[in-house]
Amino acid sequence: MTTALLTDQYELTMLQASLRDGTATRRAVFEMFPRRLPDGRRYGIVAGTGRLLDAIAEFRFDDAALGHLAEHHIVDGSTLDWLADYRFTGDIWGYPEGEAFFPGSPLLIVEGTFGEAVVLETLALSILNHDSAIASAASRMITAAGGRPCIEMGSRRTHERAAVASARAAYIAGFDATSNLEAGRVHGIPTAGTSAHAFTLLHDDERDAFASQVASLGRGTTLLVDTYDIETAVRAAVDVAGTELGAVRIDSGDLPQLAAQVRKQLDSLGATKTRVIVTSDLDEHAIAALAAAPADGYGVGTSLVTGSGHPTCGFVYKLVARGADGDLIGVAKKSKDKLSVGGRKYAWRRIGAAGVATQEVIGIGEHAAPRDGRELLVPLVRSGERVFDESLESARQRRRTSVEELPPHARQLSHGEPAIETTYLREGR
Amino acid sequence: MTTALLTDQYELTMLQASLRDGTATRRAVFEMFPRRLPDGRRYGIVAGTGRLLDAIAEFRFDDAALGHLAEHHIVDGSTLDWLADYRFTGDIWGYPEGEAFFPGSPLLIVEGTFGEAVVLETLALSILNHDSAIASAASRMITAAGGRPCIEMGSRRTHERAAVASARAAYIAGFDATSNLEAGRVHGIPTAGTSAHAFTLLHDDERDAFASQVASLGRGTTLLVDTYDIETAVRAAVDVAGTELGAVRIDSGDLPQLAAQVRKQLDSLGATKTRVIVTSDLDEHAIAALAAAPADGYGVGTSLVTGSGHPTCGFVYKLVARGADGDLIGVAKKSKDKLSVGGRKYAWRRIGAAGVATQEVIGIGEHAAPRDGRELLVPLVRSGERVFDESLESARQRRRTSVEELPPHARQLSHGEPAIETTYLREGR
Repeated sequence: MTTALLTDQYELTMLQASLRDGTATRRAVFEMFPRRLPDGRRYGIVAGTGRLLDAIAEFRFDDAALGHLAEHHIVDGSTLDWLADYRFTGDIWGYPEGEAFFPGSPLLIVEGTFGEAVVLETLALSILNHDSAIASAASRMITAAGGRPCIEMGSRRTHERAAVASARAAYIAGFDATSNLEAGRVHGIPTAGTSAHAFTLLHDDERDAFASQVASLGRGTTLLVDTYDIETAVRAAVDVAGTELGAVRIDSGDLPQLAAQVRKQLDSLGATKTRVIVTSDLDEHAIAALAAAPADGYGVGTSLVTGSGHPTCGFVYKLVARGADGDLIGVAKKSKDKLSVGGRKYAWRRIGAAGVATQEVIGIGEHAAPRDGRELLVPLVRSGERVFDESLESARQRRRTSVEELPPHARQLSHGEPAIETTYLREGR
Repeated sequence: MTTALLTDQYELTMLQASLRDGTATRRAVFEMFPRRLPDGRRYGIVAGTGRLLDAIAEFRFDDAALGHLAEHHIVDGSTLDWLADYRFTGDIWGYPEGEAFFPGSPLLIVEGTFGEAVVLETLALSILNHDSAIASAASRMITAAGGRPCIEMGSRRTHERAAVASARAAYIAGFDATSNLEAGRVHGIPTAGTSAHAFTLLHDDERDAFASQVASLGRGTTLLVDTYDIETAVRAAVDVAGTELGAVRIDSGDLPQLAAQVRKQLDSLGATKTRVIVTSDLDEHAIAALAAAPADGYGVGTSLVTGSGHPTCGFVYKLVARGADGDLIGVAKKSKDKLSVGGRKYAWRRIGAAGVATQEVIGIGEHAAPRDGRELLVPLVRSGERVFDESLESARQRRRTSVEELPPHARQLSHGEPAIETTYLREGR
């Protein structure tokens, strides 16, 4: 399936006009960055880069795409010819997945001719804006969970394909598993799930449903105990499965109180190793409120796949430099409320004496090696060839170390300023 | 591309257990409904039904899907055999696209065996929750725009495939066009777009950029005038394109004030027919605030594709009735905070003397013809065969008449209660 038409029409009309006047071949540097973090957030987490590199490889104008553009007179014949041969031949650098970001972080730098780089705008923004929004919310939930396992189960509350990408982004941010089978197949993420209320309601009584589930899925399964009366259900669950019962799940009610009550009941029945899983409308704040409750795992749905109040990141993709008489000159829009900083960027994170991040340093112009920190941009594509391909495990590890390196207030859930400030350096100074 | 694994794992483990104990063949009625509207919203608009019917037709477990399930031991061999032959053979009714909905509206009713109906849960919820969230937000924007044309341009702020579905949902709700080319190709929605700031920045000066765009796209094009100084840009735009210039676009700043200023300048230059399009971070409230400004059209991005604060609808899919000794009995979860109403539903909208909707009537049990209103559920699938397929134009028309039929306070943008109350009738009483 080609990704070529997952694109705003104006990318192609700009291409047509620039092909006609000769500027399409001018050297261009586009930069993707957030103007700010969502209100109150202290950091964000990059996700989607791997998916973007896959999507760029599939960005080819096939007959169906070209036929549509021709039939609707969206671009002219010479533009169609150019698109038919399209292949990105430039260079791309980016923050790798799992890395923390801050206002102004140059998350992606695309350098090539104007024509080849401008047409990637919409696709690149769609993927990184979505996936990073999910990973940024997920990272807060993982911090709130304090080491207890989290399962992503929000597929039903987002677009069916966004659900697969959400599972991937949540996994990068530290979630342990997903309910989404396609995410298991495509991305190799562990999948989980046992039963819903419908299964209990289908049976003549709850005990029949539990017995059936244990017979089919084994004593290690998770029984859902809140269809009718929780205390009765827990008793029946242990009665049917024995004390080797894997887990019970509570999906409604006052979760801290119910978790404590169910834990006590399980212990009194001898099921001391049976875990208590809670799953009702959790977000990072509800998870934090469960810290003192005897919950052994969290299932998170709606608030995860909707970015917990911030369903998109607001990244923009701006031309920041272009060729002019053999040189590269910085360019920027002048409008007051949508300022960009012109010029090609590099970036490092300044690290203080105790190994704690202190600043996001964005250099403009010629690259200078970081003197007291670590480089943030890695080469992703060189002369059109993908040179970066990493496992989700490696992105997951990066998120962990990147968040641990931030000052402690970064991990607070309350509203606050970005955890470190962003500073701009011109020409290595 | 099969849709079969766009599914939560627990659907298939429930299937396995029910196949093993024989309950998979029990007659089952599942219902999709909203427990409530998003906080402050007065109505919602259904979208996604057409996409769901397409997705159900593609819901087949192919070798790749079965191979994944087998390799990861997600279900057993006899369940795999059952899935390999899967084809939905039951009946589906639903609110057609464009229809208004209220708390409790039975938006989709799926009747079949438990096994064949339960596996559609995740897919059905993903599609309708997403698309209806977009259509519900879009409908408010269309009301706020008061007849001025609206263009959907939010692709960059949502998942790349959700963007295509968003364009479709927005079109159903009354948007006139989309920036998304794939939505044009797949759904036949008109597409629009001319240029971004990058095009101006690419050129040596703004006038060169305008001249190039007009030479390529004609005098009827839309020139973006806020890259540097708006007054200078408008003068250059008319100078280059003449008074036949189609439109200018303003993408930043104080839009009501700028629209008035630009309108005045255009008129003074004789470009009295050149339209003023505004596009910066609009939502329904910002659009309403522009009602008195001389704006001729709105481009809406982020807030549209994120549901303007409510990116999902919170629809649930619940077993409400099942076979028992040849009868159909109503079933419902008892948990206090997640109550369902058991029993097979029908629905009509009660219409008062003046042709104004007064109540959402939900009947439980045997269907009774509406006495003073119109029926809301239409047959979508009969014995596995799709029996409903309508154009987007027809859904668009339905949204218009359905919203017009609501009492006037339904169209207020302020927070409020659902525009009409929902009432339940038992057995036709």
